[in-house]
Amino acid sequence: MTDLVKPPSRPEALRRRIPDAAVTRLPVYLQILNKSITEGVSQLSSDQLAGLAGLNAAKVRKDLSYLGSYGTRGVGYDVAYLVYQIKRELGLLNDWKVVVVGAGNLGNALTNYAGFSSRGFEVSAVVDIDSAKVGKKVGGVVVRHVDDLLSIVNNDKVSIGVIATPPASAQRAAELLVAAGIKSILNFAATVLTVPSEVSVRSVDLGMELQILGYYEQLNRPGACQ
Amino acid sequence: MTDLVKPPSRPEALRRRIPDAAVTRLPVYLQILNKSITEGVSQLSSDQLAGLAGLNAAKVRKDLSYLGSYGTRGVGYDVAYLVYQIKRELGLLNDWKVVVVGAGNLGNALTNYAGFSSRGFEVSAVVDIDSAKVGKKVGGVVVRHVDDLLSIVNNDKVSIGVIATPPASAQRAAELLVAAGIKSILNFAATVLTVPSEVSVRSVDLGMELQILGYYEQLNRPGACQ
Repeated sequence: MTDLVKPPSRPEALRRRIPDAAVTRLPVYLQILNKSITEGVSQLSSDQLAGLAGLNAAKVRKDLSYLGSYGTRGVGYDVAYLVYQIKRELGLLNDWKVVVVGAGNLGNALTNYAGFSSRGFEVSAVVDIDSAKVGKKVGGVVVRHVDDLLSIVNNDKVSIGVIATPPASAQRAAELLVAAGIKSILNFAATVLTVPSEVSVRSVDLGMELQILGYYEQLNRPGACQ
Repeated sequence: MTDLVKPPSRPEALRRRIPDAAVTRLPVYLQILNKSITEGVSQLSSDQLAGLAGLNAAKVRKDLSYLGSYGTRGVGYDVAYLVYQIKRELGLLNDWKVVVVGAGNLGNALTNYAGFSSRGFEVSAVVDIDSAKVGKKVGGVVVRHVDDLLSIVNNDKVSIGVIATPPASAQRAAELLVAAGIKSILNFAATVLTVPSEVSVRSVDLGMELQILGYYEQLNRPGACQ
């Protein structure tokens, strides 16, 4: 077991940017590794990790090499240390504060979403443009007016904005978040946002996910469509 | 403008499976093309489409070649026809019926989600294991008991199951969906599901999306973590 209290010095090369596709796989590895720890597993080979992630072992080794992690031949990776390395790389050694824009059903669901807080993301505030919603409680968080966004972001040191508005309001929500100093946005509105280049946006378009499933559903039903 | 009423015969080669990564990009192209139509655009080059999608033109041409669509040199792609081809490939010429398992906040949000119905996905039913929720309305749909799943799927010809339960209930929900004949599952619970190989699962782990953003947020704040 590696001592996780003192972070080892980080070689210069690691400050390079990791390819986007590899970044999206790091949370998958993290989920698998955390589960392995609860099962008492302390070492995993790249083959084992690849099998659990549904990837090939060469890709797993390449991804982990970006973390400076190369495993030990015949032994594999130290699971606890790899968890630490991935958390460090993803910035999960910090707790991040999140503001949700939009206190509708989706904002409500996201504020209550157990998968946020359990991963170190705390919903600091929910804001809405509708004064009738202001003051009501959503998932233990009092809804505030969107006009308070700047002071919320500054006072609570919020880093991440989540857009849970209708599509027509999403661009305006993004602009307000950017004006308040937010540089990382998770967008659930089914629309493409225009933001300055230094702002990172990840869009989760739930309808697109269903469209992708539609392809596989159709494959399961040959002849159904033509 | 191409006549969209009579689908052209589909060359044998197109019945091959499209690579998964290309499938995930088809809805992105579709969104861009639909927007172009509303703006009166009838032709788009692969360069233009690539620019709008944030991809390189060679990848766009390769993706569209799986549809049997090659564009015309110097003219580009016929937007309306490409929309038709993508919709055909994604199975969007059919309307798909959806059952949502879990009538909590997330199930509620998903049932109300405008991005589903506008894309031809109709939430046919919401089911929950909690009898206290049965009979209540969620987004215009009456909550039914999970014991009714088989009859709902059969009677309403439901094709897609959406899991919006807590993580601990998700595997059971998946098993019930599979037992009811569902072969396509969209999973929002932050857990890995075990399903038979003929069942397609897409997992949207909202916490993982935030973790990925954490990486970019940390890049924006050099030295914040070490």
